[in-house]
Amino acid sequence: MKRVVMIGAGNVATSLAHALRGRCQLAQVYSRRMEHARLLAGVVGAEAVDNPAAVAGDADVYVVAVPDDAIAGVVEAAPPTDGLWLHTSGSVPMEVFAGRRCRYGVLYPLQSFSRDLLVDLSRVHFFVEGSSAAVTAQITDFTRRFLSENVTFADSRRRRNLHLAAVFACNFANHMWSLAADVMARDGLPFNAMLPLIESTVEKLHHLSPSQSQTGPAARGDVEVMRRHLSMLHGDEEEIYRLLSQSIMNHKAQK
Amino acid sequence: MKRVVMIGAGNVATSLAHALRGRCQLAQVYSRRMEHARLLAGVVGAEAVDNPAAVAGDADVYVVAVPDDAIAGVVEAAPPTDGLWLHTSGSVPMEVFAGRRCRYGVLYPLQSFSRDLLVDLSRVHFFVEGSSAAVTAQITDFTRRFLSENVTFADSRRRRNLHLAAVFACNFANHMWSLAADVMARDGLPFNAMLPLIESTVEKLHHLSPSQSQTGPAARGDVEVMRRHLSMLHGDEEEIYRLLSQSIMNHKAQK
Repeated sequence: MKRVVMIGAGNVATSLAHALRGRCQLAQVYSRRMEHARLLAGVVGAEAVDNPAAVAGDADVYVVAVPDDAIAGVVEAAPPTDGLWLHTSGSVPMEVFAGRRCRYGVLYPLQSFSRDLLVDLSRVHFFVEGSSAAVTAQITDFTRRFLSENVTFADSRRRRNLHLAAVFACNFANHMWSLAADVMARDGLPFNAMLPLIESTVEKLHHLSPSQSQTGPAARGDVEVMRRHLSMLHGDEEEIYRLLSQSIMNHKAQK
Repeated sequence: MKRVVMIGAGNVATSLAHALRGRCQLAQVYSRRMEHARLLAGVVGAEAVDNPAAVAGDADVYVVAVPDDAIAGVVEAAPPTDGLWLHTSGSVPMEVFAGRRCRYGVLYPLQSFSRDLLVDLSRVHFFVEGSSAAVTAQITDFTRRFLSENVTFADSRRRRNLHLAAVFACNFANHMWSLAADVMARDGLPFNAMLPLIESTVEKLHHLSPSQSQTGPAARGDVEVMRRHLSMLHGDEEEIYRLLSQSIMNHKAQK
């Protein structure tokens, strides 16, 4: 059985440790704060450590799931070992390990993690990169066997593009829901009435591309409805309605 | 058992007829095209008619689920009866029935319907309006008993606001996914890798308002990341990124 050390005890580390439990031998959980290390280590049957120098030297895989700006420090302070060292960040280049370890890479789950909700990692898409082609193959194999079938190679540039795409797909889409909630609240309407419609819009993405499934006044060029909607808005909302309707029409014209 | 006549055989009529089947007696399905009437009538055990004059006079409820601009014509051509007449449109005022029927109203499901997918109406939110307080109560009762627990009163103004909110929540959110897909495609990345992340963003809306659950560079005021992202974009995409990030920051400041 593969021996794994989990470095970090936050949201990402917790989801990963739960997914690996029973499939790998979780040797240790490290956290700067012993009570955090103990909490996760207790659940997954590992040893808790709070001193990076006490990280075991004989594990096969070290998963570094700590905040971006803490990665370099904890790698520096932990004993240099022959195992495979992976970090889980979308923004930190793999080169944070260069000169510090021999076999290393990135295991980046495209998902947002929260304290309250354990994520089912088997549905998540992982993006991986290794310090050599052989290491990339090892990381891919490790991910497929223990975490998820959905694995794609992504270097730093691709991870940056993924992060940008996620801002559009999640942060900006979520802002559209904030604006919808504002429009509804002005008329005493409950936002949750919109949820079934939002969910069926997402459901369509499993069958059609977002451009193919686009509907609404802009997609069908319904100028009269767009004009009426603009007359109901002002400020930010009006400007956003105008720009996005135009962008939908441009998109339609280009396809 | 309530006798119901379904006027229309399209996507909305089909979903409604399936939901009512077995709970009401579906007397007739009317469609301008006999083959469409027959198709739906056959499945739900009703009589098919293609002549509005042949619509039965003795039903309790008449559901008019035809395209917006066909509602007035079909109501005009069908025999005036004592039953309750309802249309299902978000955009057509209830007054389309005024002077033509005595008891009438609107039964508007906030949902998009498609040919390929039967919608589970019990999860959908219905917005209702009646020609009198008593009729509104009857429509609410009919909806709760046979279709969905989720029923809210909405007059024409509220339905217009709902439609506007739906453009933000669905059409514009979907456009964000189109733009994300474009960013990913430029780097050979598969859009479906984004789906688990989109789905967990939607899942959060069951627990938090969209403003509360907003994350990302704009929400945390991370100017450096926003500047890097803007340098990766141009045209429509750059302008949208700039405007939406600013709007998210304004929103945050107002709360």
